[in-house]
Amino acid sequence: MKILVIGATGTIGAPVAHALARHEVIRASHTQSALSVDLADPDSIKRLYARVGLVDAVVCVAGQAVFRPLLALTDADFALSISNKMMGQVNLVRFGAEAVTDKGSFTLTSGILSRQPMPGGAAISMVNSGLEGFARGAALDLPRGLRINAVAPGWVRETLIAMKMDPAHGTPAAQVAQTYVKAVEGNMTGQVLDAVGGDG
Amino acid sequence: MKILVIGATGTIGAPVAHALARHEVIRASHTQSALSVDLADPDSIKRLYARVGLVDAVVCVAGQAVFRPLLALTDADFALSISNKMMGQVNLVRFGAEAVTDKGSFTLTSGILSRQPMPGGAAISMVNSGLEGFARGAALDLPRGLRINAVAPGWVRETLIAMKMDPAHGTPAAQVAQTYVKAVEGNMTGQVLDAVGGDG
Repeated sequence: MKILVIGATGTIGAPVAHALARHEVIRASHTQSALSVDLADPDSIKRLYARVGLVDAVVCVAGQAVFRPLLALTDADFALSISNKMMGQVNLVRFGAEAVTDKGSFTLTSGILSRQPMPGGAAISMVNSGLEGFARGAALDLPRGLRINAVAPGWVRETLIAMKMDPAHGTPAAQVAQTYVKAVEGNMTGQVLDAVGGDG
Repeated sequence: MKILVIGATGTIGAPVAHALARHEVIRASHTQSALSVDLADPDSIKRLYARVGLVDAVVCVAGQAVFRPLLALTDADFALSISNKMMGQVNLVRFGAEAVTDKGSFTLTSGILSRQPMPGGAAISMVNSGLEGFARGAALDLPRGLRINAVAPGWVRETLIAMKMDPAHGTPAAQVAQTYVKAVEGNMTGQVLDAVGGDG
């Protein structure tokens, strides 16, 4: 398969691109890949597809959202979270439907704050849940057997280490990446695949 | 209790206001109440709270989102669905937190398309799921014992009749309204309360 991975240089994205190496992987990211894309900019997404041409799968391991206590979240925080992580990934599907071959797939990234909330996570819970609802709904409308799923990572061990937090309950990024591989190579659609497991 | 009901003239909202009549109910809606509010306009929401003063509960039974097949949904359809049903209700919480008395509550409206998708419902599934995720997250950050829950109505019998569809699987609006009463009068927070049941 020819697979477009967006966010291919990230903590999860790099292992995802590596884990898909038996396929042809096309790497894109905001600033660190030859192919650049700004998820918050619909035209940037359209230009990416115009440059890449047909692919068999699109995997997005990118998207910014703001972690901040509810009453400290600003209008701009909500707007960024919505336009980047949520609508950025929704637009990858809308503008990419013609760029993916029959029975190809979209794999988006939500996160377990969708269903396991924590203080400070209201905006992230909102966009993660929104993406999961979108995947369930969009799966019923996509043409030509196209599939769509959302992977919901929990805390990633490498992220916890970088934040100087206890990594014991984090899932190694390489393990999280395997859930993306399952979504790409499997047959499921409209599903949310949790990528959680701390005993790596 | 003094309860602000937004969308108080709607198919579900009118029975909700009626079912809460043992309390003092303040009715607001987009165009048909003495108190008007445009959920898509943050300033309109702030003006509403400035006029109403302190309340013990806010119930929102309003919010527009667009039902249309995925690849026919326009940028404007997504923007409306997000700004009106999703951020409109999120902003009722953000801008109303100071207007609700200790241990008061917010009750928002999502809908079962969040978890039971149907063709044409991708944008609605997205905003409904987003609202449910927001309620779970915001519950952990609200001060002074404030509660927040989302009610998720299924198909409403009166709506099906108005659409000339088979009402057999619809839930009567008066029955749906009882779920809002439970959210206002109960003690739960961060919950999604399904208001579904076709046998009246």
